[in-house]
Amino acid sequence: MVLFPPMINVHEATDLIHKHLKLPCYGEEVTEDILADRDYPPFHRVMMDGIAVSWNVFREGRRSFPVAGTFAAGVPRGKLTDFNSCFEVMTGAPLPEGTELVIPYEHLEIENGIAKIIVNSERSEMENVHLKGSDALKGDVLLKSGMPFNGPHVGIASSVGKALVPKKFSINIISTGDELVEVNETPLDHQIRRSNVHAIRESLRLHGFHEVELSHLADEETAIEDHYKKASQNFDLLIYSGGVSKGKFDFLPSMWKKLGVQEIFHGISQRPGKPLWFGVDEKTNTRIFGLPGNPVSSLVCLHRYFLSSKEVYAQLVSDITFKKDLTFFVPVKISSDRSGVLKAIPLPIQNSGEFSALASSDGFLELPKDQSVFKTGEAFRFHPWRPM
Amino acid sequence: MVLFPPMINVHEATDLIHKHLKLPCYGEEVTEDILADRDYPPFHRVMMDGIAVSWNVFREGRRSFPVAGTFAAGVPRGKLTDFNSCFEVMTGAPLPEGTELVIPYEHLEIENGIAKIIVNSERSEMENVHLKGSDALKGDVLLKSGMPFNGPHVGIASSVGKALVPKKFSINIISTGDELVEVNETPLDHQIRRSNVHAIRESLRLHGFHEVELSHLADEETAIEDHYKKASQNFDLLIYSGGVSKGKFDFLPSMWKKLGVQEIFHGISQRPGKPLWFGVDEKTNTRIFGLPGNPVSSLVCLHRYFLSSKEVYAQLVSDITFKKDLTFFVPVKISSDRSGVLKAIPLPIQNSGEFSALASSDGFLELPKDQSVFKTGEAFRFHPWRPM
Repeated sequence: MVLFPPMINVHEATDLIHKHLKLPCYGEEVTEDILADRDYPPFHRVMMDGIAVSWNVFREGRRSFPVAGTFAAGVPRGKLTDFNSCFEVMTGAPLPEGTELVIPYEHLEIENGIAKIIVNSERSEMENVHLKGSDALKGDVLLKSGMPFNGPHVGIASSVGKALVPKKFSINIISTGDELVEVNETPLDHQIRRSNVHAIRESLRLHGFHEVELSHLADEETAIEDHYKKASQNFDLLIYSGGVSKGKFDFLPSMWKKLGVQEIFHGISQRPGKPLWFGVDEKTNTRIFGLPGNPVSSLVCLHRYFLSSKEVYAQLVSDITFKKDLTFFVPVKISSDRSGVLKAIPLPIQNSGEFSALASSDGFLELPKDQSVFKTGEAFRFHPWRPM
Repeated sequence: MVLFPPMINVHEATDLIHKHLKLPCYGEEVTEDILADRDYPPFHRVMMDGIAVSWNVFREGRRSFPVAGTFAAGVPRGKLTDFNSCFEVMTGAPLPEGTELVIPYEHLEIENGIAKIIVNSERSEMENVHLKGSDALKGDVLLKSGMPFNGPHVGIASSVGKALVPKKFSINIISTGDELVEVNETPLDHQIRRSNVHAIRESLRLHGFHEVELSHLADEETAIEDHYKKASQNFDLLIYSGGVSKGKFDFLPSMWKKLGVQEIFHGISQRPGKPLWFGVDEKTNTRIFGLPGNPVSSLVCLHRYFLSSKEVYAQLVSDITFKKDLTFFVPVKISSDRSGVLKAIPLPIQNSGEFSALASSDGFLELPKDQSVFKTGEAFRFHPWRPM
């Protein structure tokens, strides 16, 4: 009788993985604190196209100003000498010296070099001016190391002169199994095409991992061993698809053991994905996932344990019963109603080989093992196939 | 007095954009219907490692079977001749002819070539067998054209022999403005670094747009015109950052007009991002966005009108008042509580130049213009900076 190794639960598995593998968010994160190199804005910045005038002169009642010049963004700061006159100023320009108020074109009429205010409205000193240092002062921490890469972050870093270099993470996806033929080949009756690795690569890419290489190996110990020795030198992470269950030809775990790879765990009390294997090769500082060969199992394990995204919960729209003492991952279609609630429509599948059933799913719900009846309206952790 | 062109509202703008620009989801979508090329699974597929036996013989009470051979995944289907014996079978193998039941290793003891069942449990015909055609029959539509690219979809297409070719979308981001210097340069007091285009490119990349090129142009009509003539030939979409407000040096709209580009709209009743410009060049089949130059405005417009993702709503955790007759986009930090509700913590900013305030935001909430008080618990459309 072949014994399955003692199984841990999904939470123990998660903790062990996080202990050994810091998940790079979207494959990329900010790698250093980003400080303001000067005040932001660096000068009193004009926020509207119009004219800049002296606050005192305006307050004393003047509403008509000869135009003494024009200052666009990108030209050095101007200086108003005749306080009864004005400068035309464009958005982004430094507020000229001697002026403390910007009046937008929409409130003006400009004829023969005279700007007249034709719209009366409450005005205040420094109105339509973005004050120097009001966003950040020189030396302020704008971004902290470890923050995810996103558009605003890259913009902020660029504005202080830092071209953020994302932390890259290189991955090798390895499929094993003699039953597999290439996508462009026509399989014999007993063969299937090599689809898992493509599903895995696409999932990684959608989460920001672009340094991904595919390898296919026959179920042949020496070939797999030779490949491992090279790959463990060259990649941060190896993801094997198949070869970790208890079949006669699933010799990956024993091979890793032989090569001195530390097995962190093998087997999780979950469905699908029970045979998941995770290990660490300290010599080469490589992390290794052995995903089950079934398409659904491999994708569920990949998303649940590696591509884990922001914690999001969704409410079941129908009851589910699952009596086994396992965490149950059920494919769902997701929708967000206008009250801000995420709804999950379960698409239960018969077995983890049933791949096509995933076509209409957005991801899967995680139903805890200590519960067997899951009621409509109850919310559970949702894992999306791709960033929502 | 410079008049702002008549403004449309956010919904009119959205409809106009969708009419002229089919938003490629994540830059990529399935471009053809994907049909099953054969039944799936293509054969009765073994789902557990163990032995395959005759259902009749098992039902008649036999619990001990000499092992007549072993069939792994990838070898042609076997045929059991002596129905009192069994085959060892591995997950993924075709179920051998003459057998209708798979008993897993966990229930067996195998000694001297005899497999004995040592765990009694209810068994049924074809148990642990994934039935031929149970997922899909030859000719079934597995994926519909227009579906988003995701891991499972790519896997499904691969399994039927289709290497999905994503529909690519090429984009040129153009910054204008003499006040801008490169990220690696040290700006003078009146200058700022060119950060918007990097924020925009990163945002596009995070949404799956990888064919993106950056250009920087001085505020110089001929240079901008020459660039446009070339770029409109080479890109699907041009995104201009700055140059569309009403400043003396914002001559993009008039240039486009002169070049025969159709202006779809200019100006939306929203804050920030009021000056957004959108147009179509029918000659070259190019779409053009003129984003406001302010960092916050440009990112808000980009995400609201181009990178619009799945409709997601989030609940305010504090009240907001905004009296102007404009749609108000407010940066928020988002969290999903365990009841499945998305919560939005507003991070109001003083003006659309205040970039650093976005650092801790996850995106922005869309507060409708026909409302001026927005209460805690009310849910509004959420637009994330990056896929959640």
